[in-house]
Amino acid sequence: MTDFTDQIRERLLPFPKRHFIASQDLDPPDIMALLDLADLFVDMNRRSTKKLDLLKGRTQVNLFFENSTRTQSSFELAGKRLGADTVNMAAKTSSVAKGETLIDTAVTLNAMKPDLLVVRHSASGAAELLAQKVGCCVINAGDGQHQHPTQALLDMLSIRRAFGHVDGLTVAICGDVGHSRVARSNVILLNAMGANVRLVGPATLIPGDADQWGCEVYHDMREGIAGANVVMMLRLQLERMDGAFIPSTREYFRFFGLDREKLQVAAKNVRVMHPGPMNRGVEIDSEVADDLSISLIQDQVEMGVAARMAVLASLAARLEAEGK
Amino acid sequence: MTDFTDQIRERLLPFPKRHFIASQDLDPPDIMALLDLADLFVDMNRRSTKKLDLLKGRTQVNLFFENSTRTQSSFELAGKRLGADTVNMAAKTSSVAKGETLIDTAVTLNAMKPDLLVVRHSASGAAELLAQKVGCCVINAGDGQHQHPTQALLDMLSIRRAFGHVDGLTVAICGDVGHSRVARSNVILLNAMGANVRLVGPATLIPGDADQWGCEVYHDMREGIAGANVVMMLRLQLERMDGAFIPSTREYFRFFGLDREKLQVAAKNVRVMHPGPMNRGVEIDSEVADDLSISLIQDQVEMGVAARMAVLASLAARLEAEGK
Amino acid sequence: MTDFTDQIRERLLPFPKRHFIASQDLDPPDIMALLDLADLFVDMNRRSTKKLDLLKGRTQVNLFFENSTRTQSSFELAGKRLGADTVNMAAKTSSVAKGETLIDTAVTLNAMKPDLLVVRHSASGAAELLAQKVGCCVINAGDGQHQHPTQALLDMLSIRRAFGHVDGLTVAICGDVGHSRVARSNVILLNAMGANVRLVGPATLIPGDADQWGCEVYHDMREGIAGANVVMMLRLQLERMDGAFIPSTREYFRFFGLDREKLQVAAKNVRVMHPGPMNRGVEIDSEVADDLSISLIQDQVEMGVAARMAVLASLAARLEAEGK
Repeated sequence: MTDFTDQIRERLLPFPKRHFIASQDLDPPDIMALLDLADLFVDMNRRSTKKLDLLKGRTQVNLFFENSTRTQSSFELAGKRLGADTVNMAAKTSSVAKGETLIDTAVTLNAMKPDLLVVRHSASGAAELLAQKVGCCVINAGDGQHQHPTQALLDMLSIRRAFGHVDGLTVAICGDVGHSRVARSNVILLNAMGANVRLVGPATLIPGDADQWGCEVYHDMREGIAGANVVMMLRLQLERMDGAFIPSTREYFRFFGLDREKLQVAAKNVRVMHPGPMNRGVEIDSEVADDLSISLIQDQVEMGVAARMAVLASLAARLEAEGK
Repeated sequence: MTDFTDQIRERLLPFPKRHFIASQDLDPPDIMALLDLADLFVDMNRRSTKKLDLLKGRTQVNLFFENSTRTQSSFELAGKRLGADTVNMAAKTSSVAKGETLIDTAVTLNAMKPDLLVVRHSASGAAELLAQKVGCCVINAGDGQHQHPTQALLDMLSIRRAFGHVDGLTVAICGDVGHSRVARSNVILLNAMGANVRLVGPATLIPGDADQWGCEVYHDMREGIAGANVVMMLRLQLERMDGAFIPSTREYFRFFGLDREKLQVAAKNVRVMHPGPMNRGVEIDSEVADDLSISLIQDQVEMGVAARMAVLASLAARLEAEGK
Repeated sequence: MTDFTDQIRERLLPFPKRHFIASQDLDPPDIMALLDLADLFVDMNRRSTKKLDLLKGRTQVNLFFENSTRTQSSFELAGKRLGADTVNMAAKTSSVAKGETLIDTAVTLNAMKPDLLVVRHSASGAAELLAQKVGCCVINAGDGQHQHPTQALLDMLSIRRAFGHVDGLTVAICGDVGHSRVARSNVILLNAMGANVRLVGPATLIPGDADQWGCEVYHDMREGIAGANVVMMLRLQLERMDGAFIPSTREYFRFFGLDREKLQVAAKNVRVMHPGPMNRGVEIDSEVADDLSISLIQDQVEMGVAARMAVLASLAARLEAEGK
């Protein structure tokens, strides 16, 4: 693996900030550098021996206040394949007095001298708050309805590998935009990279300030995805909704579920995405989700590990550059 | 450890199949080769330094839909001692729409590029279904009432080490045969290796098709274990029973619990086995379970780690032979 | 790290016993040697590369019958940074028939050939019981109201680093002494090291045999901490109290909560400690807890990882000396 490590080191730049809290932490050149690096990790992860010493002796803590087998495993694999020591900490928000105790947790963790802290929390702003209290790098793995920036980076990687570029593409983000941190993180990154971004969904699920997001807004699915190169479906976050606004899933599918019929108005080279886990038959039809000629959904998972490896390695490079 | 690695490599053969789903995946020569290899791992695990680089860079995922501290730890230790990166994923069947979502889980996991996937699930056939959807090797760690083939392999290893051979031995498998994947996997492997297998239990706990299993069936415990070299007790799987058929545990013990008195009719060199965890005083008496001159129950746990190391190493050797 | 490994090896002595169950397992010279060793690990943990091969090939099992993210993570990090393979096993006491099944668990675990077994259990004496049944080293990470000896060791390390010595210091241990294994372990170690130890708390929370602990007992907080160099607050263990004796937390804070006003009677160089997690506003005021000029609470967490590394490394050195 020695020559592979050399390739990595050639492309590896220190992360532009100490923490990765939100998509706006990255400028377009940073994004390009991370995607280039991630491409190498995609190759590595397809090999039989997928292990580097790059983060040997570094400690990565995965602190998940919300359950997420998928995201946690992705980060854990990313860290282990880079040679880090990884520790998972499950914490229940419910058993925790919010605010102060989150800080106690942060300060306690920090005293154990981790280098990289991956955090998921149900409260918007939790990752930022933690970052202010600790000496290590904080990576936001989803905070409330705020952001999930590594998801946006992996989506970017999936799109760039499918189309060869991101700029000029029309990307329709569809469904429960209002409750979606995935949408927020993606809009910022896609706009920065020169894509044309549309938000598509019922008025009740489009946030009130969407006109300031730099996107066109559509309340009709067919209009919204007409000519789109990428249709990015969102998970209907029923668990984050107030009772009054929970739609009937059958009605929802009829108007905003993605099926082959609706998809006919999209561009010929259209690709379909979903951050998972899918509510099949609610926001997306299985026939579309499982058609590997148009669906990038499995690619997104694969790109997730590679993109997170790029982020972890770059943050560690920054620590090294700072002499830490 | 270098010369030890050489010994391992000499005995290491590619696993005969891509997956290890059921006992019938192995022919007698495969079984013998795996047992020979496992014997080496038993030696290694008794040393102070029990670690190889054989699986370095390989990713092993333990996906347990059913809780099992014992089996999961056994696989985790086996993988770590071979140098693999191991990741545990706990998943609750209850929160999962069966079938389709199991496949989503499989496809998602597969995209993270594991090499070895250990799976336990409450549905018979789950491991086979997963194996059809993924590119990595699948090891069945128990699927419903179907099979648990590494348990059968470790039982075989325990028996061979105790008697020096398996062929010609009379093995009485006693108790809740109907709900037992351990019994199914053992009968196939023991028959293949030339043992005489008996099933012993009340009519309600012996499966209807038992006459096609190639075993003698006994409904009287003393008759069933008369002259037996091995008495393999099964856990009474109350949690898998319909209300109507749950026996009184006191009555059960009286007729089918193994105690020193009933054991007198067995062969003089009899050995007692139990896959654990035991219901003491229900299917087995503590006096018998804890008598190390006849009980192999602790050996079974030790052999479990070694047998699983043999399976994991052989599957990885197969991947390597396939250029993967 | 080679020369660092050499420094470690120079200071590393075999642990005086096979197990670390209680503070009295250590004599003053043992304590000094462990603290000297731990000082080195503190330095190492502050580096970018914090990883040794000292325990490579050793297996450490963390068996926690009681939930404790903090303590478990501390042990897990300690083991990983020393190069051990670590496995976490969560077990619920509630689902377990006590006594016999704890032994079954021990015997099962032992058969998997771990070298180091870290155990936490709600029953006093559980660690000792396990130690009698296994071949590996047992480290008590808290057993009921009995002991938590690595906590005492890390507290000693924190005190020695803050004051340069322990002997002659006056240490007031305040609050719920009766339910506290932390207090029991600390009193023994502090007395052995020549500190003057006081127990401070309401009569209902001071154990009946406290006069035999070799400490002065105070029921008035100001009298108890007058002139103290160290004020060690304890967590109010409401979960271990009978209904009748649960105090009103507001009343409790008024009389026994540590705030800046009460602290004025302590020595000028006073340092405040708490084993965490804190009940802020119950046993300690945030203004005191967060004042880094007097609070050692974060140091205690940092010292926890280092002290546990010293214990694990010394126990492994003992195994090696025994040829195991």
